[in-house]
Amino acid sequence: MTTGVRRRMGVEERRQQLIGVALELFSRRSPDDVSIDEIAAAAGISRPLVYHYFPGKLSLYEAALKRASEDLAGRFVEPHEGPLGARLLRVMGRFFDFVDEHGPGFSALMRGGPAVGSTTTNALIDSVRQAAYEQILAHLQVQDPPARLELIVRSWISLAESTALIWLDGRRIPRAELEVQLVQDFAALAAVAAARDEELTALLRRIFATEPADNPFTDLAGRLVTLASP
Amino acid sequence: MTTGVRRRMGVEERRQQLIGVALELFSRRSPDDVSIDEIAAAAGISRPLVYHYFPGKLSLYEAALKRASEDLAGRFVEPHEGPLGARLLRVMGRFFDFVDEHGPGFSALMRGGPAVGSTTTNALIDSVRQAAYEQILAHLQVQDPPARLELIVRSWISLAESTALIWLDGRRIPRAELEVQLVQDFAALAAVAAARDEELTALLRRIFATEPADNPFTDLAGRLVTLASP
Repeated sequence: MTTGVRRRMGVEERRQQLIGVALELFSRRSPDDVSIDEIAAAAGISRPLVYHYFPGKLSLYEAALKRASEDLAGRFVEPHEGPLGARLLRVMGRFFDFVDEHGPGFSALMRGGPAVGSTTTNALIDSVRQAAYEQILAHLQVQDPPARLELIVRSWISLAESTALIWLDGRRIPRAELEVQLVQDFAALAAVAAARDEELTALLRRIFATEPADNPFTDLAGRLVTLASP
Repeated sequence: MTTGVRRRMGVEERRQQLIGVALELFSRRSPDDVSIDEIAAAAGISRPLVYHYFPGKLSLYEAALKRASEDLAGRFVEPHEGPLGARLLRVMGRFFDFVDEHGPGFSALMRGGPAVGSTTTNALIDSVRQAAYEQILAHLQVQDPPARLELIVRSWISLAESTALIWLDGRRIPRAELEVQLVQDFAALAAVAAARDEELTALLRRIFATEPADNPFTDLAGRLVTLASP
């Protein structure tokens, strides 16, 4: 089926094919352990031809990371409808789908993979974090966040990253549980910070007013009361 | 005072001096922006002599990071006496002291500095995280942590890192507030996870039984109830 078609691929089409092949291999083994030879073989072309499209492994890696970053940022997009907790839970589901699909590649990147420290790589990671940050603020309907809200949102994003990384290392906890947990973690971190910030308290009260009765806060509050009382 | 003494320094003494000078400079500006020339000038020796002790900037950077890592890991050590919340709060105070003292160097390292991706650098960062993890388990008197407890402790450590990084970027929130907040965040993350783990619930109940009446959990629980009720 593909014989003949391969030879007629344009430059951009071939580049996209190689990126797809690389991402497929990185989803099963760390990018450090995948050679250009393997990528060439999986794409059905010669090693020198890979170098014709990408001058080195780093440039192919960065192109693959760019596509994966755009893919992930796209999964953060969620309609502005219904309770906020339910929206965040759906996004968490798609985030864990992504982590699941890209396991070894995601781990290697976040733990210090081959291209970590490269300006391009760092900029791509930052762009995904920024996309997540902006989506959350948009859902909270906040344009100019107070410092404590910015801290909560950005530090929660890093909590989601580390939770996903730890999950990948052995998958000892069901991912569905962690998706719910991260939504409740967001509520918990916000509640802790709100104690020192009236603006944040007012924002949270506005949010809770539109949440269903069994929202993550009331659930968590009940649990803490139970835990802390003798 | 120092003339004459400088010339008589031994190899190890000179190396330690250069590490100290480098850390001092990295505490004020990012390592990327500090040249070997500046380090040589601050140490009062020639540039070639610096290279005699360290073959390149990376090796000096890694030696400086090693000393800083040992310094930080040392600050995690806390006597096993008194309420756990108070112990963790004291450690948080020393952690923010460290972050405060090493500001630009800490930021550059955690955000992707000159040596990020180097095996030595990654191993040093991991060793500090592991030291923090082991200290916390020792204080909790847990030897073989269930998966959910390991997740809480490790992900909370990454939360502490990101909170410190965000604090360094403008210092818009008083650090004393963030030190308390991180202790309460630990309690909040543990409470969220305990809902799904009886072993963890039992562990938390054991801890709370020895905490004073106004422990971080009861404080947080009261606040959540207030926030979530209309």
